[in-house]
Amino acid sequence: MGKKEKQFVEEITPMEVDFAQWYTDVIKKTDMVDYSPVKGFMVIKPYGYAIWENIQRFMDGRFKDTGHKNCYFPLLIPESLLQKEAEHVEGFAPEVAWVTHGGDEELAERLCIRPTSETIICSMYSKWLSSYRDLPFLYNQWCNVVRWEKSTRPFLRTSEFLWQEGHTLHETYDEAQEETLQMLGIYQETAEELLAIPVITGQKSDREKFAGAYATYTMEALMHDGKALQAGTSHNLGQHFSKAFEISYLDRDGTLKNPYHTSWGVSTRLIGGIIMVHGDNRGLSLPPGIAPVQAVVVPIASHKAGVAEAAEKIYEDLRHDFRMEMDDRDQHSPGWKFNEWEMKGVPIRIEIGPRDLENNQVVLFRRDTLEKQTCPLDQLKETVSKLMKEIQQNLFAKAKEMRDQNTHVVTDADTFKTIMKERPGFVKAMWCGEESCELQVKEETGATIRCIPFEQEKLGETCPHCGEKAEKMVYYAKAY
Amino acid sequence: MGKKEKQFVEEITPMEVDFAQWYTDVIKKTDMVDYSPVKGFMVIKPYGYAIWENIQRFMDGRFKDTGHKNCYFPLLIPESLLQKEAEHVEGFAPEVAWVTHGGDEELAERLCIRPTSETIICSMYSKWLSSYRDLPFLYNQWCNVVRWEKSTRPFLRTSEFLWQEGHTLHETYDEAQEETLQMLGIYQETAEELLAIPVITGQKSDREKFAGAYATYTMEALMHDGKALQAGTSHNLGQHFSKAFEISYLDRDGTLKNPYHTSWGVSTRLIGGIIMVHGDNRGLSLPPGIAPVQAVVVPIASHKAGVAEAAEKIYEDLRHDFRMEMDDRDQHSPGWKFNEWEMKGVPIRIEIGPRDLENNQVVLFRRDTLEKQTCPLDQLKETVSKLMKEIQQNLFAKAKEMRDQNTHVVTDADTFKTIMKERPGFVKAMWCGEESCELQVKEETGATIRCIPFEQEKLGETCPHCGEKAEKMVYYAKAY
Repeated sequence: MGKKEKQFVEEITPMEVDFAQWYTDVIKKTDMVDYSPVKGFMVIKPYGYAIWENIQRFMDGRFKDTGHKNCYFPLLIPESLLQKEAEHVEGFAPEVAWVTHGGDEELAERLCIRPTSETIICSMYSKWLSSYRDLPFLYNQWCNVVRWEKSTRPFLRTSEFLWQEGHTLHETYDEAQEETLQMLGIYQETAEELLAIPVITGQKSDREKFAGAYATYTMEALMHDGKALQAGTSHNLGQHFSKAFEISYLDRDGTLKNPYHTSWGVSTRLIGGIIMVHGDNRGLSLPPGIAPVQAVVVPIASHKAGVAEAAEKIYEDLRHDFRMEMDDRDQHSPGWKFNEWEMKGVPIRIEIGPRDLENNQVVLFRRDTLEKQTCPLDQLKETVSKLMKEIQQNLFAKAKEMRDQNTHVVTDADTFKTIMKERPGFVKAMWCGEESCELQVKEETGATIRCIPFEQEKLGETCPHCGEKAEKMVYYAKAY
Repeated sequence: MGKKEKQFVEEITPMEVDFAQWYTDVIKKTDMVDYSPVKGFMVIKPYGYAIWENIQRFMDGRFKDTGHKNCYFPLLIPESLLQKEAEHVEGFAPEVAWVTHGGDEELAERLCIRPTSETIICSMYSKWLSSYRDLPFLYNQWCNVVRWEKSTRPFLRTSEFLWQEGHTLHETYDEAQEETLQMLGIYQETAEELLAIPVITGQKSDREKFAGAYATYTMEALMHDGKALQAGTSHNLGQHFSKAFEISYLDRDGTLKNPYHTSWGVSTRLIGGIIMVHGDNRGLSLPPGIAPVQAVVVPIASHKAGVAEAAEKIYEDLRHDFRMEMDDRDQHSPGWKFNEWEMKGVPIRIEIGPRDLENNQVVLFRRDTLEKQTCPLDQLKETVSKLMKEIQQNLFAKAKEMRDQNTHVVTDADTFKTIMKERPGFVKAMWCGEESCELQVKEETGATIRCIPFEQEKLGETCPHCGEKAEKMVYYAKAY
């Protein structure tokens, strides 16, 4: 590694030294995000936002394929509406931003900026629903929400974030449950196929479920530092909100009934997950599925005859099939550019110089393996296309390997504590089902039950913490 | 017209009787929008939101083709930032919503919900810009904004609305001016080619320009009631904000300079324009380019052998090329369905019944002309495709004819007043250039200068209102 290149990489703190600082360095150096003048609020810069757009496009397609339509509900919610569902207000009231004045006038009733939209949406659904024929309601919105956070970190926990929230109504509990799980399935597909992030899916414990939910389902991913990220949740809300908001319909039998209700959401937090699952000490490593730039063309010695033209031709030939960038800046050396694009996690770099030109070839560099290969010019498009698929699969495989290596089966409390202290990761363990036991584990180790996975295993008869009869196998982890 | 059909249409107030009520009836009956529990805030329902998505897709493509990238800036702006540019704060402060509390704590400084984002964006640009090599900045965001309005009407004027706002920085005034006009051009293309709405483009008078702008350019459309709608604006902000926010860069010559700045936006207001330009007493009439449903299949006597299957096959054959709906509801008669889809403005209805089946044909109904034609089944796709283009063009031609019929050249004050009182529309007239004269016309007639059009005509030597020497030809109208 040349001196210049070394310096470049050294601007990122190694993740083994300080993972939080590594994360901050990566998001700042790669121009994904910036801090705003409002504490806890971030600016998503184009390189970060483009990832969000790619996620949106994929998910929005899946939502529509499954019959959902988008709409838009107001940003502001009257205090009285927020208070209609008891658990919900208790969960959210401490962290909402309050609007008290419009122009020069003080408002008669305070309005909160939506922390999530169940209440305002239910107040509308109660107007819209009248007959069983109207069901199901399958609506989603893409929007911003505000939750007043004391301690924030870009993408992972910010006072404002972007997300989608689906809100559906159904005739029966079973239908609502099917919807809840279907949407979790789409989230899992998004995580695994698009973001190359393997996830554990399952149900939240009562302590960890959404305020007002009957049951919350989640997908959990493991980050490079051994902490878990809740990457998406889907809630079966039962009739809690439909009763509180008096949503009812005339059923086939002529009686009024309350519908069953779901909501589900993922946010810009997913971008934090991509960074912390695939990134390394050189910076980002982006799955081709969401990379804003899938391949960059870097001409070498572009003043030499034909190089600039050949580079331009490659760019033109590929740019309709891939998200391409042409780096013909003359103020930077090829080495500097290599490092910058590696840091920004671009999956493939295409180098072309005078010697390549002579041989009718290019050099292809893979960000995920750091390997170089030559490729004849006339096979470039197919090769790039094939490499994209390989990189996508390899990133998933590497992430899964990392997760599996950091997932431990534990049957006794001491080992549990040692793991959480020394090399945290997922811990699979049996659980008695008691909230008090769950809380004690959290206080003693910092780990929480991330989920009761759908894929249950029998690891013993008793809860390793309290020794009581075990009910279920759960995943524990420290979490973001 | 059968009795049932008549009743159906009668639920919409004729526009000649009460245009405002007609508008309200149409948006409510067609399920585009609803009023929310928060005064002045609307809910955009799926049928309205899908139009916005179609507009977004088109415009976002044009923005990206011209080198712009999307990003996201915070919802909330500190009061001190809003106050940095004098004209701007004066223009917006009276109509912002103020956040004073986060959770249980009172904030040290009030935060306003963005009414537009020049101030927060400029505060970030001042951090990001350092060298002439960084320019231009070509960024856009799609977001919600809040302006506390006393009197609101869905899509046209609401306390919250959705929009895009582009914010760019350039080295020179000329470049900024070129950008300002380029984006106005894209807005005009969107209006005319996608929405089939003809627009007048030109510059705003100083009285009507954006708070803090050097010059504001606008596109203005004429509604069915003879009032104008400002449908999009593009501002050359000069160096007003870049100086106020101390945005500077090191130029080629080694000196620090302030860049030139533009901003430009269109909003969900465009949907109001679509309704009021193309709608009629039967309801909406949507241009195929943005219609959520471009064609609906309605089977006639679908219990008869083969009809349901044939309808389904038509739907399946077309749904990959067009946005299709299949109306196989059994609780409604074909006549009821015809009326509903006409009201919802679906450009083409495809009817198929037993006799059509025998003849291997369908009946096609055009919403814009209310004409029916038969079409052989084996020519259906091409015919629908051709009809879509014709309808799009015809809607534009009809709207242009309507506008031209309601555009009057006026050279004397009395005629001006009579027109504004009796049959308002666009009035083309010469103008002395004085703000006092402009204001007096507004007070006397309710009409304002909509723009100083790029296409100037010489209609006389003097201003018809004050008799002074005329400087420019302008368009006057009463406006939304």
